[in-house]
Formats: sequence, structure tokens, C-alpha cells
Amino acid sequence: MANSKYAYVRNYELPDPLLPGCFLICRLDGHSFHRFSEEHGFTKPNDERALKLMDHAAMDVMTEYKDIVLAFGESDEFSFLLRRSTNLYNRRQAKILTTLTSYFTSCYVFHWSKYFPDTSMRYPPSFDGRIVLYPDERSVRDYFSWRQADTHINNLYNTAFWALVKQGGKTTSEAHATLRGTVSAMKQEILFQQFNINYNDISPRYKKGSVLVRVPQEAPEITSEHSAGQTVALQIPFERSTEEKKKRARTRTEVLHCDIIGDEFWMARSFILAG
Amino acid sequence: MANSKYAYVRNYELPDPLLPGCFLICRLDGHSFHRFSEEHGFTKPNDERALKLMDHAAMDVMTEYKDIVLAFGESDEFSFLLRRSTNLYNRRQAKILTTLTSYFTSCYVFHWSKYFPDTSMRYPPSFDGRIVLYPDERSVRDYFSWRQADTHINNLYNTAFWALVKQGGKTTSEAHATLRGTVSAMKQEILFQQFNINYNDISPRYKKGSVLVRVPQEAPEITSEHSAGQTVALQIPFERSTEEKKKRARTRTEVLHCDIIGDEFWMARSFILAG
Amino acid sequence: MANSKYAYVRNYELPDPLLPGCFLICRLDGHSFHRFSEEHGFTKPNDERALKLMDHAAMDVMTEYKDIVLAFGESDEFSFLLRRSTNLYNRRQAKILTTLTSYFTSCYVFHWSKYFPDTSMRYPPSFDGRIVLYPDERSVRDYFSWRQADTHINNLYNTAFWALVKQGGKTTSEAHATLRGTVSAMKQEILFQQFNINYNDISPRYKKGSVLVRVPQEAPEITSEHSAGQTVALQIPFERSTEEKKKRARTRTEVLHCDIIGDEFWMARSFILAG
Amino acid sequence: MANSKYAYVRNYELPDPLLPGCFLICRLDGHSFHRFSEEHGFTKPNDERALKLMDHAAMDVMTEYKDIVLAFGESDEFSFLLRRSTNLYNRRQAKILTTLTSYFTSCYVFHWSKYFPDTSMRYPPSFDGRIVLYPDERSVRDYFSWRQADTHINNLYNTAFWALVKQGGKTTSEAHATLRGTVSAMKQEILFQQFNINYNDISPRYKKGSVLVRVPQEAPEITSEHSAGQTVALQIPFERSTEEKKKRARTRTEVLHCDIIGDEFWMARSFILAG
Repeated sequence: MANSKYAYVRNYELPDPLLPGCFLICRLDGHSFHRFSEEHGFTKPNDERALKLMDHAAMDVMTEYKDIVLAFGESDEFSFLLRRSTNLYNRRQAKILTTLTSYFTSCYVFHWSKYFPDTSMRYPPSFDGRIVLYPDERSVRDYFSWRQADTHINNLYNTAFWALVKQGGKTTSEAHATLRGTVSAMKQEILFQQFNINYNDISPRYKKGSVLVRVPQEAPEITSEHSAGQTVALQIPFERSTEEKKKRARTRTEVLHCDIIGDEFWMARSFILAG
Repeated sequence: MANSKYAYVRNYELPDPLLPGCFLICRLDGHSFHRFSEEHGFTKPNDERALKLMDHAAMDVMTEYKDIVLAFGESDEFSFLLRRSTNLYNRRQAKILTTLTSYFTSCYVFHWSKYFPDTSMRYPPSFDGRIVLYPDERSVRDYFSWRQADTHINNLYNTAFWALVKQGGKTTSEAHATLRGTVSAMKQEILFQQFNINYNDISPRYKKGSVLVRVPQEAPEITSEHSAGQTVALQIPFERSTEEKKKRARTRTEVLHCDIIGDEFWMARSFILAG
Repeated sequence: MANSKYAYVRNYELPDPLLPGCFLICRLDGHSFHRFSEEHGFTKPNDERALKLMDHAAMDVMTEYKDIVLAFGESDEFSFLLRRSTNLYNRRQAKILTTLTSYFTSCYVFHWSKYFPDTSMRYPPSFDGRIVLYPDERSVRDYFSWRQADTHINNLYNTAFWALVKQGGKTTSEAHATLRGTVSAMKQEILFQQFNINYNDISPRYKKGSVLVRVPQEAPEITSEHSAGQTVALQIPFERSTEEKKKRARTRTEVLHCDIIGDEFWMARSFILAG
Repeated sequence: MANSKYAYVRNYELPDPLLPGCFLICRLDGHSFHRFSEEHGFTKPNDERALKLMDHAAMDVMTEYKDIVLAFGESDEFSFLLRRSTNLYNRRQAKILTTLTSYFTSCYVFHWSKYFPDTSMRYPPSFDGRIVLYPDERSVRDYFSWRQADTHINNLYNTAFWALVKQGGKTTSEAHATLRGTVSAMKQEILFQQFNINYNDISPRYKKGSVLVRVPQEAPEITSEHSAGQTVALQIPFERSTEEKKKRARTRTEVLHCDIIGDEFWMARSFILAG
């Protein structure tokens, strides 16, 4: 029962290195989360517990994989930006992709009960993932603008839709019909006129999504911070060597819910796209 | 904040269809499971609870993905064979790979407490995955022979190693030194002479790994079966349409711990490689 | 001016091995040959000189690359079948693809004046190429059936079209209009009734295309053969080592214009798909 | 003999688009040109006729493919830079790669007799090709620096080597032995001391290789230019539409033999990397 006569099958495993010099963006999407959110009674249009659980899982992923410099989450999806020069797993595509997807999933299930203490998980959820290469800073920024613009569009629609259904007593079909063809301003108008909801007052988490940034840190002490009413989480990495420890202790990850389409965010954080 | 001006970034997502006409094998491997097994007190050389948890997760994956016709598991790895003509997700590589990896991981965490009721999970485990294409039946069979021969080799080594350590009072270094360069027969001799362990009497689960086979079923009733002292699990698929229901009801998945290197297994189950 | 500081750019060259265990088919197509054939006064509907030049170039390619076991040509295209187990250039895709394409092109230009002694080449023609993997014998045979059925369909159309134009005095628009929607039998009927052309009598080269087969040879002597009115070319390889010489001397390449859709061709030549 | 039942084989042709936003460099290399140059009596260490033939073929390629903005040639190789945003053949890799390789080869054979009027081509030469993606300007420039540094290193070695053999009366083994381990300065010293050759006086074509640049042109008239003793070729494109004509008439291609490692070349020609 020697193994050597069969080992030739390894030759069918082909190399899959990702092109050097490009940023990597790994995007995860919940699989059939429409059903999953219904089965677990997620609040509409947004369930804060579910979003915080997503953020927690993403934070864990960033704690484990230091080459992720930025992440953006909305609804049941999360995008992770790996720095241009990352050599994680020698840039092997399947290895990076599956490890991130698997770890995120694992954290999601693992932390479930912290966010849903009264709702037991009825069946295991899953996520699909993909890695896309972006060769320059412009396309990276446009990628994140694309996602955040999507967050806004979806949230405004869903906010108006559920106001019409829950407060306005419409059926879902009627609510869809009412919103068909409306532009942003009209949806905001409906919210304000009919339901006295000022869209500007809605939580930045819902309007802007979650922005996780790895921040270089001067002092090695890990301290809590708070900036302009926005949540800030703290990263306590699991260190190994002293050298590693030093390097790792010098970053922490912030959770923000701010605009990332304009220049301001990026100009204040040039380290994100630096290397 | 229109989305359209950024949507061009989707052009960077390149197609990744897998070659038609080939079998797909997706292999998952535990990430840093050496540490994970230590932190959670896995029994050495084999922890039956951990192996059964792996089988359970694999069974769930096969229940969800009907194009998986065979799976083989040992230690912290599992290989899934998708039939040659599968059109799952239009054969998109990343989609298939991440969905299977994510769902397996999710099931592993989800079912943990059933197999480790007294050991709470200390941190979230993860798995990496890869898909390899095999163009013909010979290479598929050799792939599974390769894995099962590996199971045997590892198990014999580990069984002897831990006998020397636990019962023989050797240090791990001494045990490694004792086994260095020994062939199979010598290891079996050590087990028998020094520890009165007949390797043949060891559980087939440890010696042969776990073989999960999707079996076509004549009758639509779902019944329990038992064959030759081997575990048989039952698959209760979540059906959707009547048509689907009929098709799905006609298969069930068996868990075996039998030889898959010889011809007998395959000749008795020609449906595995049929389409 | 040391080279070493720039050598990192080689890391951007990614590996591109082709999956083992699959047949390779490399198909070359003339680039803008509609214009090329007009500028060089090719006879319509078929120019025997041009087809023989294609065959000559293909024969040269087969002489140089022993792992090509079969080729099929029609019009301005040629398909080359490399045996399943070929290890040519370690199965590197770009290397195989460009070398075959380049050498074929080179031979086409090189031999031009032998077939067009009175027509000087007005500008350099080119060919594009692609490699497609086929995992089994069925798909390989269907590939060649696809090309030969295409040959027949095109040739019948073109034969009828040019008869209508040249002998029938129709404009090209009228000829297209006449043939629109006709099935094979109707086109043959037009040829026979209006132009007294029996399609069966047309040269097999035009109806069937060119089939180049590498044939194992018992005797090491290189002798000329002639079979059933079909052209047979002879391959005089440029040998290097004695060992190589023996192996190479044992094959020759035949040019046929026979049916390759039915079983007969393949059953009489099982060596083509053997390895 | 309908074609449709076989057309499924086209499904095995997989898409191969190149990542957007990256520069493409296509490098062609002569196949077995050591033998080819010997069989055709190329002058050592450099054959001006052969180099000019390479340049001519490259110029033809640039005339035909407007998205090539720069090319660099030395010995039997040529590298072509396609602009970052090229959409040539929808960026399909095999199509671009084979078309350029084939057309270059064709031009090489086609123009042979202009450069070797007294030497008939004995057999058809061929070239292999590859496409490499470079995501940014730095790596593009370093690529060309890599090739030009290579030109210098090889030319200095070959110049010294053939001086030792032809003028110095050494065997080739002796010449290799003499040069083993010598740095640039020592080779230049040998040339000067023993053979009275000032390396600086050697033709820039040999020392620097050939640099073909597409230059935007203000006036639509096509005029000849001459700059600093360097050859300037002229591109007379084959125009089609008026629109195209305008665009195409506005570029011409220069052949230079200048330094491309320093900044000067690039700063004076920012259009090369512009888009």
C-alpha cells in the first residue's frame, strides 16, 4: 500500500499565483441570506445585531491577516483589501481565497450567540468569495466607491420600502410599485412627508456601511479611542515572535461608518494604499 | 452618488470556468489543526469525536450539493468528488470552491457541541480548499487510492508513535527515533510485541478513513440501512420542487470505512464514475 | 548597468501549464484571408494551390513536432492534435501555441513560390491560434467531426454559389438570395440541374478537407507509398540521437482526403488516440 | 452531416481575457537561432543585416497594430509594449499573442531577401512568444531596463569573445576561459589593449539595441526625419476610415538606438506610458 505509485495525481494540481504588483480585493457574499435572514427573524430594513456580527467576523479576519489594510461591509457582504505587495501564501489564489472565506464563516458562526443570544442558529450559513486584482489606486478607490454607493442606494430603497409596508400598511407589491422609478430625492421626500423620517438622521452604519481600517500606531500600548460618535473597535492580535509582536503591536483596526467616496478619507490615511 | 460611474470595476472580475468533461475533486484541509487539536484536547492518535464531526460536516455538504457523488475523509481533511458533467454554478471555479469550503466550515462549527459537549470551542477553526480537475476514471481512482494509502501510512505511524509514548513511556523524540526508517511490517511488529496491539483489530475508521457514497435508491421511501458493521447515515434532503424532490429522494448517502484502492468497491458502485 | 536589479520583472511571468491527461488541439486560422485570397487571385470556390500550400506547411509542422498525431485542414484553417500524454515544452501553453503558430506561418511564406510560381506574395499573411483541451476520445472525435462537417457545408455552399455566379451569370447578391434557406439536397439539385455538376464527382480534397495522419512504420526504411488515389507525403525527419532516430524513423505522415466522421477511419488507426 | 450535434465541442474553448488596467508586454524569441544564424552565415558578433531584418519585421508589426507604443529588439528577440488601456481583440490573450507572433514571423521571412540578397533561406525559422502583464509604469520601465542591460552585457561579452577568436587566434574554449569572471571594465580593457578597439566607438545599434517608438505627429503629412545620427524609419499605415485615417496619420514610428534605462528618454516621451 505504498503511496508513491499514486503520487503522480499531484501533477494535476496546477499553480495559480496572482499577478504581482496588484492590489487584491477579496469579496465575500452571504449565500441565500434572504432566506437565512427570514428564518432568523432579522429586523427590516436593517438588523443591527446581524451587521455587528458581520463586523466582528471581519475584524477577526483582519486581526489574523495583517496584509489586509481595509475592509468594507454592508448587508451580507464584506470586501477585504490586501496590500499591493502582499506575499501571503505566495499569492496563491485558491489558498488565500479559501482561507479568508473559511475563517470569516467560522467566526460568523462562532460569535453568533453573542449577537443573537435569544435566537439559536437554525442551520449553518455559508458565504461565497472571489478575488479580484486591481492594478492601481484609482481602480481600488472606485471599487470601494462602487460598494458604498450601492450601500446608499439599497438602504434608501429598503428604508422607504419598509416604511411603506410597516408604517404605511402597504403590501410588499404595493410598496415596490410606489417606489418604481423614483429617484433618491423622491424617496427621501416620501420618508419625510409620509413618515416624518429624516433620512439624514438614520444611523451612519446603515447609510455608509462599515469601514474597517488598519491604522499604524506609534505607541505599542493598546488604547481605546473614540472619534466623532463612531464606533471604534480594538484589535488584540495573537502575537508569536518578538519581531512579529513589535510589528503587529504597531497597528490597530478601527471600525468607522464614514464616507469613503470623497478624497478626505484617503488623504488622511495615505498608508492604506502605500504598499 | 450614482453607482454607474464606478460599475466599470466589475470588468476586472475575470471569468474562471473549469474545463468541461473533467471530474472535479475539491479537497479541504484544516488550517493549523495541529494547534487546534492540542488546544481542544483531541485524543491521540485518533479522536473519534473529531472524526465524526468531520464526517457530519461532509455529510451536510453532500446533502446540499447533489453533484457530489463521493467523499473521502481522514484526519483534518476531506475530498469531494463532483461528477464529470456537473454544471454546478456553471462550473465557475471560485464560486464552487468557496461555497463548499465555507459550508463545510460552517457545519463544523455548527455541530461542534454535539460531538464535544464538554469542550467549548476556544477559537474559530478554518479550512483551506482547492479544486483539481481529473480527466478520466483512472486518475480519479488513483487520487482516492493516494489519499487512502496516506491514511494507512499516517495511522500506522501515529498508532505506533503514541503507543511508544503513552504506554512505552518514551519521550516524543525517542519515539520518532525508534520509528525512523521502519517499514510497515516493523511498526506492526512493535505494536504487537511491545504493546500487544494487533493492528488488524484497530477500528476501520482509523485505518481506512471515511468513505461517503451517494447511492441511487429505488424506492422513494427513506429507510435506514445497516451493512456489515459499518455506519450508515441517512440523508434527508431539503426538497423544493416536486421534480427535484423525486430525483433527490432517490439517493441517500452511506458512510463506510472500507477499502477503496481495490476494484471491488468501484465495481459494485459503477454509478459513482458514470456521469 | 548590472542586470540583477531589474531581474525581478521576471516574477510577473506566470506559469501556464496545461492540465495533464488531456488531448491538446491547436487550431490555426488565417487572419483576414478573405482579403488575402482576393489580392492573390485565389481560384473560387477552391484554390488547389493554396490548399496544397496549407498542407505543406502542416506537414512541416508534423515533421518537426512528433507529438502531433493528426491534423485536419480546410480552407485557411488547420487543427493539430497532440497526444494526450505529450510533454512538449512541459505543456507550457504559450510556448506550444506560439511555436506551432509561428512555424506554420513561416513554412507558409517559405513555400509560397513553389505553389504560386507566377504570383509574388504582395504582403505577409498571418494566422491566429488557440489551444483547446479535450479530456476524452469522444470529444476529440467530435471535434474533428465538427470541422469536417463544416468543410462539407461550406464547400457545398461555395460550389453552388460560384456556379451561380460564374456559370449562371448571377450577381453575388442574387446568388446568396438563391441559396438562402436551402438544405444540402437542394444545393446539390441546383448544381446538377442547372450546371450539370455532380457533387459526388468533386475532388475529395474539397469535400473532405485534408487529413494528415502520423503512421507507425514497421521497417526503418523510408519508402514511398500510394493508397487508393490519395496523395501520400513522406516525412524525412531531421534526426539527432540514435535512439531518437529509431523512434522517429518509425513514423511517416500520410495526407488523406477521407471521411473522419464515421468509425472506420478511427478503428483502422487506433494508434491515433492511444497515448 | 449537420454540424450542430458536434458544435458542443466549442464549449471546451475557455475565455482568456487579460486583466484590464495593465500594460501588456509581448516578447518574441527566435527558436533555435544559434543554429539558424550558423546555417545562414551570420556575421559575429553582430550581423547588421539580421538586426535590420528584425527591426523591419517589428516595424511592420507596429504599423499594423496601433496599440503598440514601444518596441525593443536585440539579437533574435523583440519586446512589444501595448498601451495599458488597449482593447485589441478584447484583450483575449491567445488571440493577441498568436497574431503578433505570426505576423512578425511572416514579415521576417517575407523581407529576408531584401537583407540577405545573396543568401537564400535554407529552412523556415520560427519564434516563440509570451505576454506578460505589468501593472504600473515602474515595472514597465524596469522591464525595458532589464532587456537593455542584457543587450549591453551580451554585446560586450560577444565583442570581446570574437575579437579573441578572430583577431587573437584563440579557440572558442580559450576565449571563454579568458573571459570567465571578468567584469565589464576588464573586457573593455582587453578590447582596447589587445585589439585597439574602443568599445565606445562600437555602433549604438549593437550596444543599445533597437528602440521603436510610436510618436504622435502634429501635421498629417508624412515626412522623413533624421535625429542625431540615428536611423529613422517611416510608417505608412494602411488606412481604412476617414476617422481612423486621421488618428493613424498622426503617428509615425521612429527607430532609435539610444539609452532607455535613464529618465531622459521617458521624460521626453511621456506619451509612451500615458494611456
